[in-house]
Amino acid sequence: MQVHVISSVNEAVSEELLHKTVIAIDVLRATSTITAALENGSTGVLPVETVQQARTLQDRGDVLGGERYCRKIAGFHLGNSPLEYTSQEIQGRRVILTTTNGTRALHKAHKASHVLAGCLRNAAACAKAAIRLGRDTVILCAGTKDEFSLEDGLCAGLITEHILQARSGALEVNDLGLALRAAYLHSSGKLTETLLASSNGRRLLKIGYKADVVYCAEANVSNLVPILEQGTMVPFHL
Amino acid sequence: MQVHVISSVNEAVSEELLHKTVIAIDVLRATSTITAALENGSTGVLPVETVQQARTLQDRGDVLGGERYCRKIAGFHLGNSPLEYTSQEIQGRRVILTTTNGTRALHKAHKASHVLAGCLRNAAACAKAAIRLGRDTVILCAGTKDEFSLEDGLCAGLITEHILQARSGALEVNDLGLALRAAYLHSSGKLTETLLASSNGRRLLKIGYKADVVYCAEANVSNLVPILEQGTMVPFHL
Repeated sequence: MQVHVISSVNEAVSEELLHKTVIAIDVLRATSTITAALENGSTGVLPVETVQQARTLQDRGDVLGGERYCRKIAGFHLGNSPLEYTSQEIQGRRVILTTTNGTRALHKAHKASHVLAGCLRNAAACAKAAIRLGRDTVILCAGTKDEFSLEDGLCAGLITEHILQARSGALEVNDLGLALRAAYLHSSGKLTETLLASSNGRRLLKIGYKADVVYCAEANVSNLVPILEQGTMVPFHL
Repeated sequence: MQVHVISSVNEAVSEELLHKTVIAIDVLRATSTITAALENGSTGVLPVETVQQARTLQDRGDVLGGERYCRKIAGFHLGNSPLEYTSQEIQGRRVILTTTNGTRALHKAHKASHVLAGCLRNAAACAKAAIRLGRDTVILCAGTKDEFSLEDGLCAGLITEHILQARSGALEVNDLGLALRAAYLHSSGKLTETLLASSNGRRLLKIGYKADVVYCAEANVSNLVPILEQGTMVPFHL
């Protein structure tokens, strides 16, 4: 089994994802939000790239969610804060979500055999799911505007560490995966402060979303792994 | 002061290096070799991109050095092993060097105000030189065939750590720099084994260059910082 970590969406080539499992990561905040929505009873999360698409696809009962420049989109029900996706808001309803980087990563991955949404909260469960699926795995960090983001990298490192621990057999990890695993191991006791010091963490802190960063920094607290089925993220049953 | 780490040559945009100090890093092995050559008395190292250029520029007394596919080039005096660049071979002589990734990184950096060659051996000295030069600093990892290389990343992390320690004032480090600093701090007690497990380390081990990897993994043992002056790397006087 190979584990190949990619630093940002721009670096990924769709054709190279064929026959693989892709774990798309946007810790702050899209993949944390998708995980929260499914955990709280949404029937599925449909990631779309544009605001217009979200509006066009909306059916009766659907919840529109998403952000531009970290803020809720005018006329949408919810923003991109995982804390907004409570059972009260989304239980039994479909969510149509559009965000800047996370949904791009999920779309970039569409040629893969399996597409999972990973975040720090479900990292161990994602590793287990990838092993269960048995294919070479690409961990695709969404990054921000085509640049590497620290929180996505640390999450990639944590997932790599869990795969390494579970598979003592032949496992090939690329150099970026090895570096980010080391970065995660150095930071594991202080994830919250590390995320707050990252570029996205500081941006969210500044506009009043500290609680989101703290929530997204909790590692391995969820067993819910979102998987893409016919364009919609639904829970993967481990 | 800003410290911006770039993961491989391909990611660098020459125009964005204007007015900055660039530290180009190719730990295995070009920048380790340039450092060794100057330490052992070479009058200067001229990095060139092609074998043909090296042959055309050769003057009486010059030493031709370099590699393709990690091996010495036919007809050249020396390969790309720092251990070959002894005083006996190169004292008082100019070296013309062509390698696959390292010389590309140095050429990519040519629009910068200052270009230094960094490796693990001179990492602390490079940090000191960058601070002395007083400009925003880009740490450009050469990588391998446009992919991130672990050893270059760890060296970038070590240089970042030294700059952070020396400058308690306002210092902005990009997310990749923060991640690689953490990766370095996790790996600092076991650099040799980490480099031997990296992709380039394994390749060099397989073809008999273990001693090179061990030599290049020694951190902060040299005060010699190569700086580009009129196309040639010469010692920077701190």
